Amino acid sequence: MAATPARVNELRALREQLQTRYAALKAAGLTLNMARGKPAANQLDLSKELLSLPGASDYTASNKEDCRNYGNLQGIPEARELFAPVLGVSADNVVIGDNSSLALMHDCIAFALLKGTADGAAWQPSATTFLCPVPGYDRHFAICEEFGIKLIPVTLNDDGPDMDQVEQLVANDPSIKGMWCVPKYSNPTGAIYSDAVIERLARMKTAAGDFRLFWDNAYAIHHLNGEAATIANIVELCAKHGNPNRAYVFASTSKVTLAGAGVAMFGSSPANVKWLLARMNQRTIGSDKVNQLRHVRFLRDQDGLKALMKQHAAILKPKFDKVVEVFQKELGEWGVATWTQPTGGYFISLDVPDGLARRVVQLAKEAGIVLTPAGATFPLGQDPRDRNIRIAPSFPGLEEITKAAEGVSLCVLLAVAEK
Amino acid sequence: MAATPARVNELRALREQLQTRYAALKAAGLTLNMARGKPAANQLDLSKELLSLPGASDYTASNKEDCRNYGNLQGIPEARELFAPVLGVSADNVVIGDNSSLALMHDCIAFALLKGTADGAAWQPSATTFLCPVPGYDRHFAICEEFGIKLIPVTLNDDGPDMDQVEQLVANDPSIKGMWCVPKYSNPTGAIYSDAVIERLARMKTAAGDFRLFWDNAYAIHHLNGEAATIANIVELCAKHGNPNRAYVFASTSKVTLAGAGVAMFGSSPANVKWLLARMNQRTIGSDKVNQLRHVRFLRDQDGLKALMKQHAAILKPKFDKVVEVFQKELGEWGVATWTQPTGGYFISLDVPDGLARRVVQLAKEAGIVLTPAGATFPLGQDPRDRNIRIAPSFPGLEEITKAAEGVSLCVLLAVAEK
Repeated sequence: MAATPARVNELRALREQLQTRYAALKAAGLTLNMARGKPAANQLDLSKELLSLPGASDYTASNKEDCRNYGNLQGIPEARELFAPVLGVSADNVVIGDNSSLALMHDCIAFALLKGTADGAAWQPSATTFLCPVPGYDRHFAICEEFGIKLIPVTLNDDGPDMDQVEQLVANDPSIKGMWCVPKYSNPTGAIYSDAVIERLARMKTAAGDFRLFWDNAYAIHHLNGEAATIANIVELCAKHGNPNRAYVFASTSKVTLAGAGVAMFGSSPANVKWLLARMNQRTIGSDKVNQLRHVRFLRDQDGLKALMKQHAAILKPKFDKVVEVFQKELGEWGVATWTQPTGGYFISLDVPDGLARRVVQLAKEAGIVLTPAGATFPLGQDPRDRNIRIAPSFPGLEEITKAAEGVSLCVLLAVAEK
Repeated sequence: MAATPARVNELRALREQLQTRYAALKAAGLTLNMARGKPAANQLDLSKELLSLPGASDYTASNKEDCRNYGNLQGIPEARELFAPVLGVSADNVVIGDNSSLALMHDCIAFALLKGTADGAAWQPSATTFLCPVPGYDRHFAICEEFGIKLIPVTLNDDGPDMDQVEQLVANDPSIKGMWCVPKYSNPTGAIYSDAVIERLARMKTAAGDFRLFWDNAYAIHHLNGEAATIANIVELCAKHGNPNRAYVFASTSKVTLAGAGVAMFGSSPANVKWLLARMNQRTIGSDKVNQLRHVRFLRDQDGLKALMKQHAAILKPKFDKVVEVFQKELGEWGVATWTQPTGGYFISLDVPDGLARRVVQLAKEAGIVLTPAGATFPLGQDPRDRNIRIAPSFPGLEEITKAAEGVSLCVLLAVAEK
C-alpha cells in the first residue's frame, strides 16, 4: 500500500473518542486468535479422505515394498515423484521426512554442528552466523538461537533480500554459514524473490566454502489468486554457478493436507542427499511410509495437488481480502500504517509507526484479539523499530476476521493517538 | 543351553561329508533373511484396522483438540495415558514422538551434546563415554559412533549387566555420561534385568552428575510364553535413591502395530520431560497426532494391548521354538555352540567357538541365508572373540525358518570342521 501523509495530530484530537470505541471493543468480550498460520477446520476438511486411507489392504508401494514394515529411509518412490516438482529436483534427490519440515531444517543445522556438511567440518556454534531477511519467521530464528548461532538481519525487499548487503556480508565473513530464505510468499510479507535475486544468491562468492541456503519453500503451491507465481530453480542455478551443494530446499504438506499429520520433504544436490541420508541413518530406520502412501493415494498427481490448492485458496482469499479491505477502510485515510497484499502464503505484514507495534499488540490482547507477539519477525524477538506486526488470517472464520481486523485497526489508531 | 563337551576332532573327520551337505545347501538356492528384527507380514496384518482409522469424522482428542491441526508437542492425553504403564511413569511424564524410538534416543544424545541435559552443560564428544552391555544392539552403538562417543563394553549376564564392572567404571570415570540398557528380553540374548541389578543401576554412585541410563524398553510387552516378565520400575527407583533424572525410558509400537508407522514414546522425571520438550520445541510444532489418535482407537486400553501381543506371540513362538529345536537337534550333540532360549523379544543369541562367527555368517550368506553381520552385537562391529551371532527368526515363515536354522547349523559344523 502506498503511504498516505500521516494525520497524527488529527488522531490525537480524537483520542477520547477512540478510547470510548476501544472500551466498547473490550466490553464485547472477543476471543480471536490471529497469532499463528494455522489452517482453518474447513481447510482440514478438504483432506478428510486421508483419515481413512490407505485402507486395510493397500500397503504396497510401487517398488513392491510393504509400507507397514521397517525400511526405506529416503521415502517410497511414488511420494518422491509426487513432490519432486514442488522442490524443483528429480525424485532421486528427494528425501521424505515425517510431518514437520521445520524438523528437517533443525536436523540439518544440528548435523552440521555435530558432524559438518558435505563440504566441510563441524560448524562451531560460536563461529557460526546466519543471515536472516527481516521481517522473517520466528521459528527459523529460534533454531539458531537455541544453538547459539548468531543472526544478522538483512533487509527483505519486495523482490527478496537486499542482495548488495547479502553479497558484501557473505564475501567477507567466513563465519556466515547459512541464510534463511522463504522465497515465495515470504512469511510474513508475502514477498516473492525475483529471478535476479535468486541468480545472485546462487552465484555470489561466499567466504565460507560450506555456506548453505536454507530454502524454506513452505508456500510453493499456496497461491491465493488462481495464478501460480513461479520462481527460479535455486538448485539448478547453484549447480550452474559451481556451487552445487549450496541450497537445501524444504517443503511440506502441512498447509496442503493436515497441518499436524502431513509429510515433509527435502530436496538438494546428490551429495547433500547422500549426506543427509548418512546422518538420518543413525537416527531412524525410516519415516512413516504408510503416511507417504496415504498422501499419494489422496493427492494422486500434480493435477490433484493443484485442485486441492484451489480449494484452499477459495477459503483463504476472502479472509485475506477482508483484512485488506478493513485496513483500507479503517486505516487508509490516516496514513499511519502500511500493509502487504500478498498473492499467496499465510500472512499479511502490518507496519505501524516506529515504537508502537508492542503497544498495538498489547491493546489488541486486552481486547481479546491475540496477535503474533510484536518483534517475533526479528531475531531474538526484537524489532529495532518496534513497528512490524504479523497478521495470520487463516484460522478464524470470515466474520471473526472482520471483527479482528476492525479491532486491530482501532488499536493502531488508539496507539498513535496515545503517543 | 548347558555346554556339552566339544567333539571337534570328530567333526574334523566328517569334514568331507559336511562339505558335500553344504554344496547341496548352496545348490538349493535359498534366499532367506534372518538379519533384522522385522515383524512378518501376518503380524502386520493384525493391525490392518489401523490403515483405515481414525475415519473421516474422528479427529478430536479427549481435550477437544483437533488432531489434524498443529500443536501439542507432548502428545494427546489419551495416547499418553495408554502408554504410561508401558513406560512405568504417569501420563504427565510421557512424551509421544513419531514412529521411531531410536530417533528419540538419537535426539536425547544430540541435544545433550549441543545443549547439555537437565543436570549439566553440553557433553563434549571427546570427553563422553557410554557403557554398553554386550552383546547388544548395533543401532545403539551406531549413534555413539556417529558422534565420536567412546563405548566401553561391559559383560551382559543372564540377569543384566555385570554390576561390579559397571559400578567401578561409573564411580571413577566422569566421562561416562550414559549407558545403553535393553532391560527386558535384551537384544540379542533375551536377558531380563533382575530387580537387584536394576536397584544397583538406580543407586550406584556416578562420577558424572549428569549420567543417564538410556533405558530402551523395546520389548516391554513382547512376551513369548503367555506370562509377562515384570521388571523393577527404573524411574521410581532412581527417584528413591536420589537420582531422579537418571533414566530416560523409551518404547514404541513398532513391534506392536506397524513397524514403520507406529508411535514412539519417552518417559522420565518431570525435569527430564520439561528438558526434552524445551529442546523439541525448537524442532517441531508437534508429532503426528492423527497417528496417536489412530493408535488409541485401535488399541483402546491395556486389555487391547495385551490381546494384540498374545496374537503376536502365537505367530512368533513357533518360530523361536523351531530355531531352538533345530539347533538342539543339529548342534546339541557336538558341544560346539550355545544359544539362548528367550521368553520374549525378537532375537536368539548364538555363540560359536571363538574366531568362527564371521566364517559361519559368510558360509550362510554364500548359501543364501542372510544373518546379522558377525560382530554387529559389539561396538564398532568388532566382537573380540568373534563368536556371537544374532538370529532374528521373526520375518521368515515357519518353513523357511526351519531351513534357515538347519542351514546355519550346518555352517557352524562346517566352520568348526574346517578349522
